[in-house]
Amino acid sequence: MGKEMIQQSGGLDIVEGFFTRGVHCGIKKSNNDLAIIFSEIPATAAAVFTTNQVCAAPVNLTRRNLEKHHKFQLVVINSGVANACTGSKGVDDAIQMAQMAAREFNIKDPSLVAVASTGVIGDFLPLNKIEIGIKKAHDFYPDNPSGHDTARAIMTTDTFKKEKAVSFFIDGQECNMAGIAKGSGMIKPNMATMLGFIITDAAIDPKSLQKALKGAVDMSFNRVTVDGDTSTNDMVLLMANGKRGKMMINENHPDFFIFQEALNQVCQDLAKDIARDGEGATKFINVVVQKARNESEARAVAFTVAESPLVKTAFFGEDPNWGRIMAAVGRSGISIQPEKINIVFNGVPFVEEGMGNQKMTRNELRTVVQTKELEILIDLGLGSASFNVWTCDFSYDYVKINSHYS
Amino acid sequence: MGKEMIQQSGGLDIVEGFFTRGVHCGIKKSNNDLAIIFSEIPATAAAVFTTNQVCAAPVNLTRRNLEKHHKFQLVVINSGVANACTGSKGVDDAIQMAQMAAREFNIKDPSLVAVASTGVIGDFLPLNKIEIGIKKAHDFYPDNPSGHDTARAIMTTDTFKKEKAVSFFIDGQECNMAGIAKGSGMIKPNMATMLGFIITDAAIDPKSLQKALKGAVDMSFNRVTVDGDTSTNDMVLLMANGKRGKMMINENHPDFFIFQEALNQVCQDLAKDIARDGEGATKFINVVVQKARNESEARAVAFTVAESPLVKTAFFGEDPNWGRIMAAVGRSGISIQPEKINIVFNGVPFVEEGMGNQKMTRNELRTVVQTKELEILIDLGLGSASFNVWTCDFSYDYVKINSHYS
Repeated sequence: MGKEMIQQSGGLDIVEGFFTRGVHCGIKKSNNDLAIIFSEIPATAAAVFTTNQVCAAPVNLTRRNLEKHHKFQLVVINSGVANACTGSKGVDDAIQMAQMAAREFNIKDPSLVAVASTGVIGDFLPLNKIEIGIKKAHDFYPDNPSGHDTARAIMTTDTFKKEKAVSFFIDGQECNMAGIAKGSGMIKPNMATMLGFIITDAAIDPKSLQKALKGAVDMSFNRVTVDGDTSTNDMVLLMANGKRGKMMINENHPDFFIFQEALNQVCQDLAKDIARDGEGATKFINVVVQKARNESEARAVAFTVAESPLVKTAFFGEDPNWGRIMAAVGRSGISIQPEKINIVFNGVPFVEEGMGNQKMTRNELRTVVQTKELEILIDLGLGSASFNVWTCDFSYDYVKINSHYS
Repeated sequence: MGKEMIQQSGGLDIVEGFFTRGVHCGIKKSNNDLAIIFSEIPATAAAVFTTNQVCAAPVNLTRRNLEKHHKFQLVVINSGVANACTGSKGVDDAIQMAQMAAREFNIKDPSLVAVASTGVIGDFLPLNKIEIGIKKAHDFYPDNPSGHDTARAIMTTDTFKKEKAVSFFIDGQECNMAGIAKGSGMIKPNMATMLGFIITDAAIDPKSLQKALKGAVDMSFNRVTVDGDTSTNDMVLLMANGKRGKMMINENHPDFFIFQEALNQVCQDLAKDIARDGEGATKFINVVVQKARNESEARAVAFTVAESPLVKTAFFGEDPNWGRIMAAVGRSGISIQPEKINIVFNGVPFVEEGMGNQKMTRNELRTVVQTKELEILIDLGLGSASFNVWTCDFSYDYVKINSHYS
């Protein structure tokens, strides 16, 4: 006993010493659009940010604040407006949003506040509405937290809320971790932004926390693609307030791997849900590339296949179209040998040594792809490295959601 | 007089010493599916081929034959089956297809025959049907050529045939050039293959011909993208039979630039038509990147924007969504400075110094994108290099065409 991980259903509320709440403040016509994640005490923090060079003001502010203390006490998130491409006014607005939240929750140093935004690019933040939202959320403090409402408040065109909670043991002490995320969607047709917020009551030193998060994100959020478009506002943030830690541990502690495992699990489950809920998605697809020369080549192939519009529309049509996968592999930029390639769909060989399965008819192959979850295993026959990417198909609804002018 | 280029409407038929014909041989249920381009005498030839490493058998055979003589006398093209990923049988089938055509048209050396295929990947060529088609085409020889039928025979889901013809003067002698092309489409949902065949009665030496074609393709076919998926079967082939050349000229001849100009014009008009007729396209879009540090960086930005599903669906929805373009520029892999970027749609500034046009409303901007042809000018403010890409929008019909199982 003591080493296993326990799946929890409670969401953010199970983590000790945090108050979280989502409210509607009027940025969007209906539905929650503002979320607060508050820790009773400043929590050790780690984060990863978008690599897009067109980077929204809240991302820059949160990155700067993180570097200052490696601690956050509060996160305030709005959906509906991204505060991206908004120049110096956007920078001021992000700072004001942090200050408003700090004031309301009685935090002396506003650089202990992280801000995140998602929604339309180019519009300015409606600060009056955001102020109302922060006050509304504070009205629930401390007696009425709601992790579920918080998860809902960061959604844009997501069709379901994404949350995950686990418990685990460090030094025999039970600790909790929970996360929420949002994926590819928007209330106005702008950006598919990926946001993730994870909280834990374990006690982890800042360097090890950042390392753990980086590792977990590489194994999860960085393996999701819906359409290859990286947002200006992507952010995954982790806060550890130590409320249940006997002592602060670092990566050399024998139980650190348990913490890492819990974090991996939370991030992976959230990331898979993002792929499952990709705009217009009807299928979840795990593209696994094996026997590549090295991981970077495996990665190049996996992303080329997972982002090919022809591959994705074929999946939507339940067409066993392995030819499009071969063609995507062939243009992925790495050196391949077509006659060494094997491709297996959900355990059924579709391509053997570069040619189609000669024993099954196209209609027989078709029944294999008529399923909600698909694993496409691409064996390059060149080495021993592998990489996988989670994605979804490309449907009429993807076009509908993203071409809709409002 | 004598230097100008004359636009011609006749298609392939205007070029002296060539017989071309398209027929229906039953690979497809209806519509032409086999084309012959025959030169009375072996013609100097040049070609460029797909860079996809999963390369169809006909592409490999034609490349090998070209290297042998730098001459072709006949091209035989089928649509409906791509003969890709077909192993050693596919290689034999391509050779047989060339041999059948050589026999019928009385060509002693079958390596003077080029073959091209487009259609479903993985299926084997129906050689019996192809043989019937070659005979059928030969029945029209020599009195009933038809460039229009030939243009139709290489189409897959193209909605209109693509042909272009011009006349020009070399050494005071009028010469002709004509080309046909097919774009992004397929009768079964497989590959979007780009094929182009250009013939001329000018006399050009093989090295200069290859150089001219490479230059023209870089300025035309290589600037078209519909969905970023490179085919296994792409090929552009140029034949010059010299029937109207007083003498064979090379790139040092004072009139060589006229030949190059004619070739550029033919290739560009065909390439633009391919973008215009992209699967499901409702708009033609010219993405022009200016003031980049160098052409390779300009190219990276232009293709990232032109291939972004979010940008393309926004155009379909006539949404003036410059934010998605900024985001695509930001993830294009080159170093940029967002605050230096200006974006102009059809002459109207949408982004100024990285921020949205503050003087026009979203609805005013919208009227600018409500047009069939759009020029998106992206000024990076970093240097003096530029590059442009022709593309189209991303519609319901793109998904429909490519998800349809048949």
